[in-house]
Amino acid sequence: MRLFSSDTLRGRRLVLHDLIFGGDSPQGRLFDAVLIAVIIASVGAVMLESVEAIGTRFKRGLIRLEWSFTIIFTLEYLLRLSCVGRPSQYVRSFYGFVDLLAVIPTYLSVLLPGAQALLVIRLLRILRVFRVLKLVLYLKEANYLLEALKASRRKITIFIVTVLTLVTVLGSLIYLIEGADNGFDSIPRSVYWAIVTLTTVGYGDISPQTPLGQALAAVVMIIGYGIIAVPTGIVTAELARVWEGDSKPVKKMCRHCYHAQHSKKARFCSRCGSQL
Amino acid sequence: MRLFSSDTLRGRRLVLHDLIFGGDSPQGRLFDAVLIAVIIASVGAVMLESVEAIGTRFKRGLIRLEWSFTIIFTLEYLLRLSCVGRPSQYVRSFYGFVDLLAVIPTYLSVLLPGAQALLVIRLLRILRVFRVLKLVLYLKEANYLLEALKASRRKITIFIVTVLTLVTVLGSLIYLIEGADNGFDSIPRSVYWAIVTLTTVGYGDISPQTPLGQALAAVVMIIGYGIIAVPTGIVTAELARVWEGDSKPVKKMCRHCYHAQHSKKARFCSRCGSQL
Amino acid sequence: MRLFSSDTLRGRRLVLHDLIFGGDSPQGRLFDAVLIAVIIASVGAVMLESVEAIGTRFKRGLIRLEWSFTIIFTLEYLLRLSCVGRPSQYVRSFYGFVDLLAVIPTYLSVLLPGAQALLVIRLLRILRVFRVLKLVLYLKEANYLLEALKASRRKITIFIVTVLTLVTVLGSLIYLIEGADNGFDSIPRSVYWAIVTLTTVGYGDISPQTPLGQALAAVVMIIGYGIIAVPTGIVTAELARVWEGDSKPVKKMCRHCYHAQHSKKARFCSRCGSQL
Amino acid sequence: MRLFSSDTLRGRRLVLHDLIFGGDSPQGRLFDAVLIAVIIASVGAVMLESVEAIGTRFKRGLIRLEWSFTIIFTLEYLLRLSCVGRPSQYVRSFYGFVDLLAVIPTYLSVLLPGAQALLVIRLLRILRVFRVLKLVLYLKEANYLLEALKASRRKITIFIVTVLTLVTVLGSLIYLIEGADNGFDSIPRSVYWAIVTLTTVGYGDISPQTPLGQALAAVVMIIGYGIIAVPTGIVTAELARVWEGDSKPVKKMCRHCYHAQHSKKARFCSRCGSQL
Repeated sequence: MRLFSSDTLRGRRLVLHDLIFGGDSPQGRLFDAVLIAVIIASVGAVMLESVEAIGTRFKRGLIRLEWSFTIIFTLEYLLRLSCVGRPSQYVRSFYGFVDLLAVIPTYLSVLLPGAQALLVIRLLRILRVFRVLKLVLYLKEANYLLEALKASRRKITIFIVTVLTLVTVLGSLIYLIEGADNGFDSIPRSVYWAIVTLTTVGYGDISPQTPLGQALAAVVMIIGYGIIAVPTGIVTAELARVWEGDSKPVKKMCRHCYHAQHSKKARFCSRCGSQL
Repeated sequence: MRLFSSDTLRGRRLVLHDLIFGGDSPQGRLFDAVLIAVIIASVGAVMLESVEAIGTRFKRGLIRLEWSFTIIFTLEYLLRLSCVGRPSQYVRSFYGFVDLLAVIPTYLSVLLPGAQALLVIRLLRILRVFRVLKLVLYLKEANYLLEALKASRRKITIFIVTVLTLVTVLGSLIYLIEGADNGFDSIPRSVYWAIVTLTTVGYGDISPQTPLGQALAAVVMIIGYGIIAVPTGIVTAELARVWEGDSKPVKKMCRHCYHAQHSKKARFCSRCGSQL
Repeated sequence: MRLFSSDTLRGRRLVLHDLIFGGDSPQGRLFDAVLIAVIIASVGAVMLESVEAIGTRFKRGLIRLEWSFTIIFTLEYLLRLSCVGRPSQYVRSFYGFVDLLAVIPTYLSVLLPGAQALLVIRLLRILRVFRVLKLVLYLKEANYLLEALKASRRKITIFIVTVLTLVTVLGSLIYLIEGADNGFDSIPRSVYWAIVTLTTVGYGDISPQTPLGQALAAVVMIIGYGIIAVPTGIVTAELARVWEGDSKPVKKMCRHCYHAQHSKKARFCSRCGSQL
Repeated sequence: MRLFSSDTLRGRRLVLHDLIFGGDSPQGRLFDAVLIAVIIASVGAVMLESVEAIGTRFKRGLIRLEWSFTIIFTLEYLLRLSCVGRPSQYVRSFYGFVDLLAVIPTYLSVLLPGAQALLVIRLLRILRVFRVLKLVLYLKEANYLLEALKASRRKITIFIVTVLTLVTVLGSLIYLIEGADNGFDSIPRSVYWAIVTLTTVGYGDISPQTPLGQALAAVVMIIGYGIIAVPTGIVTAELARVWEGDSKPVKKMCRHCYHAQHSKKARFCSRCGSQL
């Protein structure tokens, strides 16, 4: 009898698991679509609340909404916990972490007023949207992108270290040239200006006034305008490489001479002629 | 007799159809060229009218011009309707829709003053210019572009969803850091700032004042400066793929001479001439 | 005797021609290097003159300098005219035109004060620098670039027409949304704003104030941030194509079945098997 | 006896050399890691000192810190000198030069107050970080980048000369159109504006006010938005070329089985194993 009941329970858990985690069935997709809609609505509510005119007028309604969303997400979190095989694994997973972060701020706000602003973290939940689509193609595409970015991470690291060094040196130079009178009142602030200029953002809140400073700024701009070619070139070339993918020689190594540049289909070593 | 007259009518309709829709004949091209000129002139008139100094001075002339253009376009629309095979299909087509939109605002302005501003929609009609050129090459080029963009739409969707999520989270963060005193008076406004910064536009109407805010801004700028590589990489790689398309030799090998560089559609070996 | 003198004259003309036009000999290179230095100096003088503090102080010296440069350039122009084979061809060539433009403003300034500002046209003469380098490689590289740009001119035309249409429509929309009170006081000005925003320049001299306007601005920015991928993709892919150059299948057509996709080395048609 | 002592010395020098220059051993890596940490800390101290609120409050502490860092770096410099084979070569090398530059400003500041600001040059020392990583891969990646940039330096020179010419001509034009009343008070300043606009930085400190000026600005922006494709295209295409480099199969065909996909260095057929 107990076994049977346990079986039913396990059965139910499996059904629930399918509904919540497996987005492939029609019900699973519906569940995910509703979830995404609720997530976007909850983020929208947090954003509207921050607008003064709206926040003060509809204060009560928004607070109620917030609590409703929090209760819905809490229930969902508990459901996920209950039907997953190893709860501890889910809790420590990326999605588990985000799901928890999405409900904590409201409870925190009882103790710490103002913590609600953290609710925007809920938007991270929108990443679940990729799961909803559940189209193998989408994942493949995302994987292409990730693979290309991963393959180019070393080059990008070199690029970023170079840019940060450049920006610090240029920022200090402009600090020496312009000085505090023209708004460059500290090196960190001058480095901030160098970043604003190099990335071609150009707020204009701080801008050089002396001819020499403007000349240096012109140099920074042209450097920034030019070196954007580097990350773009890296990512593009990597993407092209990832796509070529299979046609690229896989490093199949010869056991005799350790020569490694053989294609996937090679059957004999191209250096010593022994069988692979 | 009736048949004959109907024949003449059909003939005339064909001639008209050729003139208006088929831009290949010299007359057709002339018609299209004149049409484009009228479209640009009409858009120019709407723009000039909006300039206060000109709008008030030449008010009467401009109103007359507007009505002339509207009447011309209305006549053209009726002509197109009359000579096309299936009018309902034309009405529902993209060009039919735009052609109608181009005349409605003036008539509307009798009832609703100010609706004339919508006349700029007329510029959409300029897309007809591609039809005028009617060079197969141009269409082929546009198709290459469209095909590349279509092929990369999934990756671009992923990119845009990622950017929107990023911008919301970063905007909320800066809202928490800077607060209303420094111009970041609501989350939507802060998200707007994040978009302005991430896309490297950088108006400078809102800009961070605290050191922590400036540090976050620097991070946003560097992210924005870096991730522009992603859409560029996607489009470039797709374009390269579309171009390689057919010309990429598939390794179809000849059984007689083992020559391997044949295209997918090849039926005979290009070296020895034997059947593949 | 007369013949001899004519011969000497022709000889001298050839020597002069070599010196001035043929930059390959050591003397020719020296001539070109000196010329470039004089050109840069003359442009620098014009620029300095426009700076008020300097212009008023060294007025006399600068005027003398300007006349010296003009006389040097006039003499050079006459020299070129005298030693070139067909003077009329030189006069109508690009360089001949620029050389003339470089001296006219000073003479004009006698009649029209202020015409000196046009002297900056002299900088166009700097294009001669490429001739100085006279390295086949440099020209080849420039040719690669030009060829790639030429090959992509159709796609770029399509892109620019699309951008201009977009910018007009978006500028009119923002004009309707924001209105004259927020600085968008005419459609041309609003279109100017749309260009400033779409190209991610973002001066901030006009910026939307209403939430709806800022939402539209955000859309414009994201479009601008995204579509920059298109020209970049076009140029990159074309450059890659130009480089592949020879390895690309040349359209060798079969005389029997008119099938065109054959590589340069193909000896038999891949569709009908007949000899090429 | 003397020889022995000299041997010990040489031995010690070798150990020191390994520790300081050879980052491959665990001790060498630790040394480098500590060094990088000290470098970043010292740069941080210089930056903080420039912030007025901090600089005045912790003046004494910061000065002490600075001297400590300087003494550490001086000792390190002397150590390097002592254990390197040819000191003069080290002194003239890039790293030797930077290491010296990193200590001089503090000593200079005794004579010339204010020279400390030059201490940020210390950040250049961070380039040593690449040595710490000492991963062949990182260096290979950096080499790929450098090789691509080197290969494209001619095209980039042409691009920069073109941009500078363009910017001078456009800057002079806007100077003629807008004039000193709208902030364009000299040609150099107008050229500065043209650079700010062409590179899409767009500070907004100077911006055109007249319709004609704004029209020209729009043209500059669209040019700037478009030609960024050129350096990007160059770098991307070069990177792709560098990568293809060796791995591109040269069509070396096997005489026995007619298998064609062998690399240049292949000596045996990868399909049938016979000698090539």
